Amino acid sequence: MTRSERLLMGPGPSNPYPEVMKALSEPVLGHLDPEFIALLDETNDYLRTVWQTSNSLTFPISATGSAGMEAAFVNFVKPGDCVVVGVNGVFGTRMCDVATRAGAEVVKVEEDWGRAIDPQRLLEAHPDPALIAVVHAETSTGIRNDIAPLGENKGGALLLVDCVTSLGGIPVLTDDWGIDIAYSGSQKCLGVPPGLSPITISERAMEHLIPTPQSWYLDLNMIKDYVLGDGARAYHHTAPISMLYALHAGLETVLGEGLKETWARHQSCGDYLHEQLPELGFDLWAQEGHRLPELTTVTLPEGLDDAQGRKILLERYGIEVGGGLGPVAGKVWRIGCMGHTARIENIDRLLTALKEVKSELC
Amino acid sequence: MTRSERLLMGPGPSNPYPEVMKALSEPVLGHLDPEFIALLDETNDYLRTVWQTSNSLTFPISATGSAGMEAAFVNFVKPGDCVVVGVNGVFGTRMCDVATRAGAEVVKVEEDWGRAIDPQRLLEAHPDPALIAVVHAETSTGIRNDIAPLGENKGGALLLVDCVTSLGGIPVLTDDWGIDIAYSGSQKCLGVPPGLSPITISERAMEHLIPTPQSWYLDLNMIKDYVLGDGARAYHHTAPISMLYALHAGLETVLGEGLKETWARHQSCGDYLHEQLPELGFDLWAQEGHRLPELTTVTLPEGLDDAQGRKILLERYGIEVGGGLGPVAGKVWRIGCMGHTARIENIDRLLTALKEVKSELC
Repeated sequence: MTRSERLLMGPGPSNPYPEVMKALSEPVLGHLDPEFIALLDETNDYLRTVWQTSNSLTFPISATGSAGMEAAFVNFVKPGDCVVVGVNGVFGTRMCDVATRAGAEVVKVEEDWGRAIDPQRLLEAHPDPALIAVVHAETSTGIRNDIAPLGENKGGALLLVDCVTSLGGIPVLTDDWGIDIAYSGSQKCLGVPPGLSPITISERAMEHLIPTPQSWYLDLNMIKDYVLGDGARAYHHTAPISMLYALHAGLETVLGEGLKETWARHQSCGDYLHEQLPELGFDLWAQEGHRLPELTTVTLPEGLDDAQGRKILLERYGIEVGGGLGPVAGKVWRIGCMGHTARIENIDRLLTALKEVKSELC
Repeated sequence: MTRSERLLMGPGPSNPYPEVMKALSEPVLGHLDPEFIALLDETNDYLRTVWQTSNSLTFPISATGSAGMEAAFVNFVKPGDCVVVGVNGVFGTRMCDVATRAGAEVVKVEEDWGRAIDPQRLLEAHPDPALIAVVHAETSTGIRNDIAPLGENKGGALLLVDCVTSLGGIPVLTDDWGIDIAYSGSQKCLGVPPGLSPITISERAMEHLIPTPQSWYLDLNMIKDYVLGDGARAYHHTAPISMLYALHAGLETVLGEGLKETWARHQSCGDYLHEQLPELGFDLWAQEGHRLPELTTVTLPEGLDDAQGRKILLERYGIEVGGGLGPVAGKVWRIGCMGHTARIENIDRLLTALKEVKSELC
């Protein structure tokens, strides 16, 4: 089987940090081995820093980001609960599906794809929702939704935020913004392969934890006895050891560089992309003022075929970019610049390739 | 962080094959990259051989074995369905919990821990159950439950089998035994780190697939469009790429040795352990005739303290064995000999250490 070296500039996975790839091949320990428990504890400490939180229940769910979404809903939403969901892309839409399966009465607050949701509309959608849920960084559109105003004015509601594509790439201030429940994915700005979903739960949310949620695998009541137990840990499920090594190494790399410095690197890369792409004829698609530096959406120049263009980029240049989804499938590309990928030299490589592909096809 | 080289002789994880550790650090591909799709397809072909099945829906769930259990129940059990569950250990007990959360009316067929369940009792427990569920290899006790008679006489019921600790270690004849739904874990006899749960679904079971199960992440309706889609695959969630490489390499190693030869190696190791352990004063605990070669339970010699003994084995000898669970916590040890660990030289290393520990503590 071939596994070519790709420059991963799609919506994720990004290229992992070299330290992460090295950690993956470290000897496997048992999930109750004191050495592994120490590594898990340190990973969770690192995560608290990256999440900017003091939440004790902060750890990686043993599955990918979408399982983090499911854990975030099923542990807190009871049948009949009113849940307000902001929908301006694939992941807001997915939240509605997940919340509905948990029995929620979903109140959708929709916005055009490619535009940010006005927080005031979320706050006014229902007088007393159990939960308000929104995506911070919409991977399907490259839009950043504002979170801080929601935390300030949430009232009795819990605030649930999808940070899959934001954590580690742009500021996520869990405690300052009043976020109660948030989850992310390992394979975006953290520079780790896919497979884990860091989650963090506020002490306030813990008071609303459902005693027996519909999911056994994602039941935080039981998982916390393993993650937070003193001394001996209660076995729940076997932790994905090697992926934990990878996440630990990724977080160590991020914090070694400095969290603010990592945010700044993602921002510089985004700024550079946003400046250069229109000059090549790839116009920025997402609403100005709400563009993510780590995930840029562009409309395709006249005559550039979506599938053909991406195929050439992948096969000839070894560069992956993502296609558009939903209403803009075939019309936009999603260009990720996350984790270890977020380097100016990688962007230059992409820009050179885009220039050549465009002059060939258009 | 220290990650010592351990000889993993507990109930799992086992030591991964060297080929697997190498595969983990191969370059990460995107989950829609044609090279990755080809690797996934080949992995699923390998899995069909290891499962001894022609089931088209055969693939690894993107999480550990317990998520496989949850996927197996939530996709097929509707509220009010009668589910007969065999319970003679931790994992049968867990099945009841998972089935109950899916709304099942559970009929438990209990047997003493350390004894096999009479298949006839499962068949006679209810006149017309929707599903009969049993654990093939009970990791908590070292017992093998018979499966073939269940498939022969299941009538209209679906037969669901937990093969977490059996797949790749002892014969699992999915099609011949009439199994409809089965799942396993990567970290046992397949010699891969924890993180994936191979699952296989019969065409008969597919007719009973629930259109919108309570779990979004484990919804087989959507996952099958990614796993089985022709040409372009429908994105559901981001596959855990590096772990897939590991599983692919583990299966290639197993099939390179030969499936029957791998079973025979596990059997020889088990036979050797079962012969040698009693001579050292560690009596075999599980019922004769139903002892698993890959997971052996022994009672501790008089005077040997459980925690102290395991601590010395781990810290001085670098060997992990597992403690007892439930009614035999503190009284038995669980000695795994699975995957790459299943070598006579590893058993000799354990036996030498056990001899020394016993003479020191007893």
